[in-house]
Amino acid sequence: MAADTDVAADVRVDVAALTSLLDGRYRGVRESVRKNLAERSHVLRLAETLSTEEYRELVKDQVVELAATGQTGYGFPKEYGGGGDIGASVAAFETSAFGDLSVVVKLGVQFGLFGGAILQLGTKRHHDELLERTITGEVMGCFAMTETGHGSNVQAIGTTATYDPATQEFVIHTPDDSCRKDYIGNAGMHAHYAAVFAQLVVGGERRGVHALVVRLRDDDGTVRPGIRIEDCGRKIGLNGVDNGRIWFDQVRVPREALLDNYATVSEDGVYFSEIENPDRRFFTMLGTLVQGRVCVGGAAVNAAKVAQVIAVHHAVRRRQFGSPGTDQEELLLDYGQHQRRLLPALARTYALHFAQERVAADLHRVFSDPENSSERRRRALESRAAATKALATWHASRTIQECREACGGAGYLSINRFDALRADTDVFTTFEGDNTILLQLVAKGRLTDLRDDFGALDQLGTARYVAGIALETVVERTAMRQLLERLRDAVPNRAEGDPDAGLLDPAWQLSMFRWREDHMTQSVARRIQNGVTRGGDAVEVFSRAQDHVIASAWAHAERLVLEAFLTKLDNMPDGTNRQVLNMVCDLFALSAIEQDRAWFLEHGRLSTQRSKAITSMVNELCRKLRPHAVDLVDAFGVPREMLRTDLF
Amino acid sequence: MAADTDVAADVRVDVAALTSLLDGRYRGVRESVRKNLAERSHVLRLAETLSTEEYRELVKDQVVELAATGQTGYGFPKEYGGGGDIGASVAAFETSAFGDLSVVVKLGVQFGLFGGAILQLGTKRHHDELLERTITGEVMGCFAMTETGHGSNVQAIGTTATYDPATQEFVIHTPDDSCRKDYIGNAGMHAHYAAVFAQLVVGGERRGVHALVVRLRDDDGTVRPGIRIEDCGRKIGLNGVDNGRIWFDQVRVPREALLDNYATVSEDGVYFSEIENPDRRFFTMLGTLVQGRVCVGGAAVNAAKVAQVIAVHHAVRRRQFGSPGTDQEELLLDYGQHQRRLLPALARTYALHFAQERVAADLHRVFSDPENSSERRRRALESRAAATKALATWHASRTIQECREACGGAGYLSINRFDALRADTDVFTTFEGDNTILLQLVAKGRLTDLRDDFGALDQLGTARYVAGIALETVVERTAMRQLLERLRDAVPNRAEGDPDAGLLDPAWQLSMFRWREDHMTQSVARRIQNGVTRGGDAVEVFSRAQDHVIASAWAHAERLVLEAFLTKLDNMPDGTNRQVLNMVCDLFALSAIEQDRAWFLEHGRLSTQRSKAITSMVNELCRKLRPHAVDLVDAFGVPREMLRTDLF
Repeated sequence: MAADTDVAADVRVDVAALTSLLDGRYRGVRESVRKNLAERSHVLRLAETLSTEEYRELVKDQVVELAATGQTGYGFPKEYGGGGDIGASVAAFETSAFGDLSVVVKLGVQFGLFGGAILQLGTKRHHDELLERTITGEVMGCFAMTETGHGSNVQAIGTTATYDPATQEFVIHTPDDSCRKDYIGNAGMHAHYAAVFAQLVVGGERRGVHALVVRLRDDDGTVRPGIRIEDCGRKIGLNGVDNGRIWFDQVRVPREALLDNYATVSEDGVYFSEIENPDRRFFTMLGTLVQGRVCVGGAAVNAAKVAQVIAVHHAVRRRQFGSPGTDQEELLLDYGQHQRRLLPALARTYALHFAQERVAADLHRVFSDPENSSERRRRALESRAAATKALATWHASRTIQECREACGGAGYLSINRFDALRADTDVFTTFEGDNTILLQLVAKGRLTDLRDDFGALDQLGTARYVAGIALETVVERTAMRQLLERLRDAVPNRAEGDPDAGLLDPAWQLSMFRWREDHMTQSVARRIQNGVTRGGDAVEVFSRAQDHVIASAWAHAERLVLEAFLTKLDNMPDGTNRQVLNMVCDLFALSAIEQDRAWFLEHGRLSTQRSKAITSMVNELCRKLRPHAVDLVDAFGVPREMLRTDLF
Repeated sequence: MAADTDVAADVRVDVAALTSLLDGRYRGVRESVRKNLAERSHVLRLAETLSTEEYRELVKDQVVELAATGQTGYGFPKEYGGGGDIGASVAAFETSAFGDLSVVVKLGVQFGLFGGAILQLGTKRHHDELLERTITGEVMGCFAMTETGHGSNVQAIGTTATYDPATQEFVIHTPDDSCRKDYIGNAGMHAHYAAVFAQLVVGGERRGVHALVVRLRDDDGTVRPGIRIEDCGRKIGLNGVDNGRIWFDQVRVPREALLDNYATVSEDGVYFSEIENPDRRFFTMLGTLVQGRVCVGGAAVNAAKVAQVIAVHHAVRRRQFGSPGTDQEELLLDYGQHQRRLLPALARTYALHFAQERVAADLHRVFSDPENSSERRRRALESRAAATKALATWHASRTIQECREACGGAGYLSINRFDALRADTDVFTTFEGDNTILLQLVAKGRLTDLRDDFGALDQLGTARYVAGIALETVVERTAMRQLLERLRDAVPNRAEGDPDAGLLDPAWQLSMFRWREDHMTQSVARRIQNGVTRGGDAVEVFSRAQDHVIASAWAHAERLVLEAFLTKLDNMPDGTNRQVLNMVCDLFALSAIEQDRAWFLEHGRLSTQRSKAITSMVNELCRKLRPHAVDLVDAFGVPREMLRTDLF
């Protein structure tokens, strides 16, 4: 590494400026959420000592209290008492993940899933009836999609909603136990209403999955006739959320219960939708719920931050072993192995933070101006949200666990927060779309794009596909190339004269990410194409290639993350913060390449010497970032009250 | 893969015979523990609903009840009411890990740590006074080694035991809060006695860490004067165990409190030990406690089995997605990705089971005949125990987590056991020696061996070292070569005519494991040698090479595991079970090589083509083992009562 690129250890990060950068456009929103959290830090303590029932009541009360602060209503239209700012609502939600995650998830169910379904899938009469009361928390709702036997494959759910023209009602019914609604947050105790997803049957014809709003409980909490609700019982985490199972026994709801933004049923039983293709209709409806995925990804990143603040502070206080004959033992963070444990993950948190900022901005843009959002743009948003959610939630699980282990026995004590952080975030990899399924959707989306452009894959498909990739990305890449040039200019002679120079060249790093993504996507396409050409069943062929498919989506997702980080760097003013973040970005990029270096070696894209050089450089970057580690975690701005640790 | 090596899908494993093979020499012991567990399955249910205090009392009662069955006393001498069979005690402990793990850990503290310290570090008067009452559970004890500021570095603990010849007493004292005893199991509520580790000071001279038995509480539970005990509070898991902190304020104990098997203090204050070197004395004392590590490794393997039984059974019942137009969705385990998630880990559980059987047998041999156990043999046992414990406990953490995710939302419900399994085993990677520290000890041990053989590493050190490795292992390897030949003979024409033939050749697999181990150890030795030669501080040099050091220990540990598996196969009769286990062993070996294929590629030991072929072969083996997956988990013999899941 060239000496002039080094940031001297005594040069300090401007922590306040870095926090401001991370908070971005919505720093005011984030600050007010921090304040709300700090005032409610007792929730973290009580979460450990209260009984499940008491904890659930506490969490419900928190939801209502927070609704009164306005922080939970940003995403709703102003005419119903909301803030009319989707980006603000995501920022508020993400930031709340510094606190108790049962509260966060209950907020997500109430305002994101239930409120979102009413807003996006319903029309004015539903908005008028429910939105204002939902925003205040006067009405509690749940989102009844998943069934015991039907999780990720929502199209296969078995609950039916059959239209009866005689009474102008829908009859909601659970045919068997595999079709009971399951794991439904807010259903166990508090929800008055449910957005119920069911197979719509009109005039004897199945029309696919649609949502209806169904009253579950009276105001006093009594469950309505024909409905049976059972508690899901103790869970790994999130025990402040009342998950339940719901059975419907021929429950009648008025025709107006259908959330009819995308399909209507007339009084006399005529079904109509502007979207004729049932699959497309289904995915369009689901697509409106993308905000949930964006929010979960952001919450995961912020939960990981809390763990990292604690683990890094511990590591600069805790001493262990040392040179014989000296009195003082060494600080944990001065050990190479400990740096390895904490710092590449910290770099990845930064990277995911900026990727998350990007997807939240895209969401804001698309949903703030739905009329002018092309379907392509919506699909791109959905793909990016799925990709970011998968990477962010896996990252949170792994990072929190690693931080716990890095704090040794102390990490095992609940007071140091890893307990709840880990247990509560664990299901993030599963809900709002199981990560492995999401990555398959991302990959399928990319394969579908090219099928749309070039027609069904035929013998020529592969060659055309390569051309297609080139075509699709020409504009995008030109912009990125200009950005990379600016980045290199900003740090002159960054790596001159160093044999490993190229490793720190963002253009080279990005080219590695891109090459991997392109190569994997092309070879998956070829593999599926060849499999089908040879007469294989398409689903079987796809299933056999599943690990390959998922790897290609992962590569795509990581490329998006790196681009988001590089774009952020490009917009930063010169100075220490930029220099340090440059190193953080290098560490993210190189440790990601290192992680997958077997693949790069196998595909001739890395020499063995260069592969080893990457490992050395990751170690080197860890050592160089060591003096800035505390500043880098402090910049996350996790309120001190949220760190109820006794580790510092 | 050659057709004649395939096991047809309709050929079934003989499950009972496989269980018998796994149970091994102590199948009777294991069967009786299974029966004890099945009769107490209510503990699993109660663990979720009781308050912490009630849960702790339940667990204590279980310990006393189980003591009465005899299953907890196998390891103690017959004259004190024990079973006089160390191997049996390990088998019983391991098997109990199918049940509630708070009970298991409390058993470990009471009989393994406290009882073990009295037995191994004490002499006849301690045995006479305490062993019988400890074995029955009438007396409860704890093991007070770890301090808040001194975890892995036990030699640095600060508690002092100062001999006062005037009264012929030791004065036990906690100089400051960093030296309070911490995380001490059984100390929070129940222990009457503690084996306290302290810096012995005699005649003003420090003699290093020694253990003394100290009364903490009266029979009625009142804490004795001068002692302060505080509860550690809520933990991630194991909340049925009462962990506590202990402070000693000039607490006086009689001279006889010193556990004096390795060092004595005379009435007039003369210290004597047969082991003159204080470091050697310290490690000799610690070495007698190796049984704890062996037991934790075994418990981890068995906890992983429980998770795998549940996840595999779920995966052959749960259907998701499928071919369009067909009514039936696909079984989860028919997906390549799902096989990848579950089956290589299952193969590794088998491998670790056999490695564990080997280390337990070594322990039995060394401790049953201490007079005839050379120091070299003891050191080999300690190294193997550390290596196996680290691999087994990390495997358990990862596997249980992967199984939880593979069961989706259902895996998140406590009733399906992943909650407790995961939370309780989590600290296994930390206690009884932090895994990263253990692997460093393994590596240091190997480096020390060669220093002992050849003198301090000098300029010629490297060359001599290589010779040393060759010398040391010539006998061992000759035996292994003969074994491999027999293994190949047993499955004739195993892989003839197949271009990937060698991949399934155990000799080739083992040569890869060995080559990696030798290469890493040699290069670490060279690196440290060079660093020190160039004037570097030895500790600093070692610290910089830490990841390298740990990798070399990992490679060593995995080689031991593969050899244990191969040795087991060699002793099996021909038949379906052997054929299937052969595939399991192949899957373990190849997925381990695949996992580290970047390293093999970097070091020219794998071509890129062959590296890709390994990945294909791992997929292929997963498909071939798919039909046997249920039998392979059923053979673990986890009592049905322990699977309180609603997943099957």
